[in-house]
Amino acid sequence: MINEKILHLGKERSAIRELFEQGKILKEKYGEESVFDFSIGNPSLLPPKAVNETIENLLKVSKIIDARGKNNIDIEIYSPNNDYKYRKLSSNDLHGYTSAQGDNEVRDAIKKHLEKSYGVELDKDLIYMLVGAAAGLSIAMNALISNKDDEVIVFAPFFPEYRVFIESNGGKCISVSPDYKTFYPDFDDFEKKINKNTVCVIINSPNNPTGVVYDEEVIKKICSVLKKKEKEYGNPIYIISDEPYRELIYNDKKSYPFITKYYDNSIINYSFSKSMSLPGERIGYTMVNPKAQDASDLYLAICGAGRAKGYVCAGTLFQFVIPHVLGSYSDFSVYKRNSQILYDALTKIGYEVVYPDGAFYLFVKALCEDGKEFSEKAMDYNLILVPSESFGIKGYFRIAYCVGKDKIEKSIEKFRQLYDFYKNK
Amino acid sequence: MINEKILHLGKERSAIRELFEQGKILKEKYGEESVFDFSIGNPSLLPPKAVNETIENLLKVSKIIDARGKNNIDIEIYSPNNDYKYRKLSSNDLHGYTSAQGDNEVRDAIKKHLEKSYGVELDKDLIYMLVGAAAGLSIAMNALISNKDDEVIVFAPFFPEYRVFIESNGGKCISVSPDYKTFYPDFDDFEKKINKNTVCVIINSPNNPTGVVYDEEVIKKICSVLKKKEKEYGNPIYIISDEPYRELIYNDKKSYPFITKYYDNSIINYSFSKSMSLPGERIGYTMVNPKAQDASDLYLAICGAGRAKGYVCAGTLFQFVIPHVLGSYSDFSVYKRNSQILYDALTKIGYEVVYPDGAFYLFVKALCEDGKEFSEKAMDYNLILVPSESFGIKGYFRIAYCVGKDKIEKSIEKFRQLYDFYKNK
Repeated sequence: MINEKILHLGKERSAIRELFEQGKILKEKYGEESVFDFSIGNPSLLPPKAVNETIENLLKVSKIIDARGKNNIDIEIYSPNNDYKYRKLSSNDLHGYTSAQGDNEVRDAIKKHLEKSYGVELDKDLIYMLVGAAAGLSIAMNALISNKDDEVIVFAPFFPEYRVFIESNGGKCISVSPDYKTFYPDFDDFEKKINKNTVCVIINSPNNPTGVVYDEEVIKKICSVLKKKEKEYGNPIYIISDEPYRELIYNDKKSYPFITKYYDNSIINYSFSKSMSLPGERIGYTMVNPKAQDASDLYLAICGAGRAKGYVCAGTLFQFVIPHVLGSYSDFSVYKRNSQILYDALTKIGYEVVYPDGAFYLFVKALCEDGKEFSEKAMDYNLILVPSESFGIKGYFRIAYCVGKDKIEKSIEKFRQLYDFYKNK
Repeated sequence: MINEKILHLGKERSAIRELFEQGKILKEKYGEESVFDFSIGNPSLLPPKAVNETIENLLKVSKIIDARGKNNIDIEIYSPNNDYKYRKLSSNDLHGYTSAQGDNEVRDAIKKHLEKSYGVELDKDLIYMLVGAAAGLSIAMNALISNKDDEVIVFAPFFPEYRVFIESNGGKCISVSPDYKTFYPDFDDFEKKINKNTVCVIINSPNNPTGVVYDEEVIKKICSVLKKKEKEYGNPIYIISDEPYRELIYNDKKSYPFITKYYDNSIINYSFSKSMSLPGERIGYTMVNPKAQDASDLYLAICGAGRAKGYVCAGTLFQFVIPHVLGSYSDFSVYKRNSQILYDALTKIGYEVVYPDGAFYLFVKALCEDGKEFSEKAMDYNLILVPSESFGIKGYFRIAYCVGKDKIEKSIEKFRQLYDFYKNK
C-alpha cells in the first residue's frame, strides 16, 4: 500500500548523499583530518554578519512592540548594510503567516533590488517567495507539465535532482549533450532535442557541477534557438533559469546575464542558500518575467502548485530578514582561492580540468572511462569525489571545493598518488 | 502549456482565503474597528517568550563559536524553560543544511519529550522534521497513494485542503458524514465507506472546523472498525492523525489520546504553528508508529515524497529552537475565554452551537439551509464567517475566535442583529 516509485526515491537517496555517508564511515575509521570529503555542496563560509544582526534587531523591535503596541512608537534601529527601515512587527507578526506568495513589502524590496542591480523592470506580484530553490523547481515542473508526453530539457552535466522533479511531476527529462571543449550545450544536439512536446528548458549558470558560467553569447544562442522553435510549434517554451550561484563568479571576464532581458517566456529560480551561506533556512524566490505569455496565469499556476505541495508560505522570520540583507554576501574570495589552488595543482599533476568560472565546483576528467570506477578507486586515497555519471555524462568527476583551505592543500598529495596509480597501471 | 488543474488551484485559492480578502475590502470601507473577521485560523497570541529567547541564545553562542572555534570552550547559557543544553553551533551550523529528515539530536529531543509526555515508545529514526503540517499531509498522501483508485477517508466537516492534498497526489477523497449530535463520525457511514481501495483515514482532533475533541471512546471505535476492515481486505489501512491543535483543549473532561497506543498503522502529523503561535515558521514533524507494518519503508517513502516535492530540510534555525522550547505554549486561556464568551452569548441569542472542546473554532448552525447564503448575509453585518460548505457539509458556519477579546465582545450585537433578521424574515 506504499507508493513504490516514491519509496524508491526515499531508498536510493541521491548518489551524492550516498557518497557523503560513505565519507562519514571513512572519517570514523581514519579520523576527520585524514579524509577529503569533496562530495557535498554545503557552503563552508560564515553567513554575512548582517544576517544574524538583522535577526537580533527584528527580535529587539518585536520585544518593544509586544510590550508597548504599535502606536506612538519610533523604531530607532537601522539595518546593518542598507537603509531598509525596520517595520513595526510584533513577535506575533514576526512568526505569523504571510500570504502564500510571501510578504508584500519583502517582494517589493526584492523587486527593487533586482531592478537596480540589473536595470530591468519587474513586477512584485509575479514574485513568489520560496522554501529554497529545490521547492521552486518542483513547483515550476508541476505548473508546466500537464501530461505524460511533456518534455523538459536539461543540459548535461546537470544537477541530478532535476530529473527527480521532472519525473515526479509526470514529465520526461531530456538531456542535451555538452560541447566537451567548453561545457556549454552542444547546440546541434539542443536543436534536435526540441519538439512539439517541449514545455521548458532548465538553465543552470554558474553551473553545478562544472563551475562554468554561460556568458551573453551563449544565452543569446540558447534564446535564439528557442524563439525559432516557439514559432515553429506555435507554443511557448519556457526557460527556467536556476540561479542559486548567481553571484558566485570568480572569472572577471564572465558575467551571467539577467535572463528576462533576453527571453520573454522566462522564470528565474533563486535561492539565498549559497550567496549568503544559509542553505538550511530554505529561503529564495521564483519570479515570472512580466513579459512572459500569460505571465499572470503562469504565476497563479506556481501558486497552485505550491498549494498542492503543502507550501503554505516561506518561513516568515527569514522573509523579514531578506530586505535588510539584500546585497550582502559571504566572502567568496575563499572559494576563489580554493578553486585556483586546486585548478593549478591538478592541471600541474596532469589532470584535465574545466576552468572554474564560478559556483564552488571543479569538474575534472577521470583517468579511466567510468567515472564511478574512478570515484571508487579514489576512496582508497580517502578522496570523496562525485562521479559525473550522477550528472548524466560519463568519465568525469566533481570536486565540491567549499571546504577549508587546509583540506584543499593537504588533498593535493592524494590526487597525485591517485594520478600515479592510473599512470603506472 | 500551463497545467490547467494546477492553475485552477492557484486561481480559486481556498474559499477561506477568498473571504479573508473580502474582509480586507470591508475593512478599507468601514475601518478595521468595525469589521469582525472570523475567517482565518491565524493565532493571535504571542509565541511563548522562550522562543525568541532561544533564538537570541543560539545567536549568542554562534557568535562565540564563530570567533573562537569549538574547542576548549564552555557554553554557559541555559535554556529558558528546560535543561536542554546549548550545542556548540557556529553560525554556519545554525543556518546550514541538516539531513533531509532533520537534525538527529532535534529528533531525539522530540522523541524523548513525547515518550515522557504520553508514556509511549517511539523511534527518532521514524521522525521526519516538517516544513509545517500541510507539507506533512501532502507528503503522506504522496507516500500512500499509488494509483487512481486509491481512496482516502476524511470525516466531514473537514479542513478543505485535505481534498487538495489527496486529489493532487492522485487519490480520491471520500467524505464520511458526521453524527450531527456529537460531530463525531457517523460510524455506520464510516463502515460503509471503507473498501479494498481505502489506503488511509485522516483524523483531525481537536477538530478544525468544529472544535470537537475525539476522546478515547471515539478513537477506540474508529480503530476497531479499521482493524476489522484491515483483516477483511488483508491490507493495512493507515490512520493519519493530523494534530496541529493537540494541546489546545479547554474541556477538562476531554483529552486526545496518543494514537500509537491504539492503532499500529498510524502516522502522527504535528505542527508547532498553533501551540506556539508560530504558523509562519513552518516547523513540525511527522512520525511513523514504530509498530506500523513496514514502518521503515513507510518512513522512507515519506523521505522520498519530501524529496520529490523539493523539501530539502525543515528550516535549520527553527529545528534548533525546538528542543529548548518543547513543553512551552502560548497562553491558551485567552482562547478558552473567547470560546466561552461566544458560546454563552450565541446560545443565549438562540444559535445552535457545537460545544467548543478545543482548537479555536466555534461551529454554529446557520439560520437558513445554505451556509453560503447565510455567510453572505452576515457580511451585511460586517461579520466574516466561513460557510460549512467549505468543509464538506451544509448549513453551518465556522467562527475562528483567535482574535482579541474586544472584537469578540463587540461582535455579539452583530450576531444578535443577524439572528433577528432571520427570525423576522
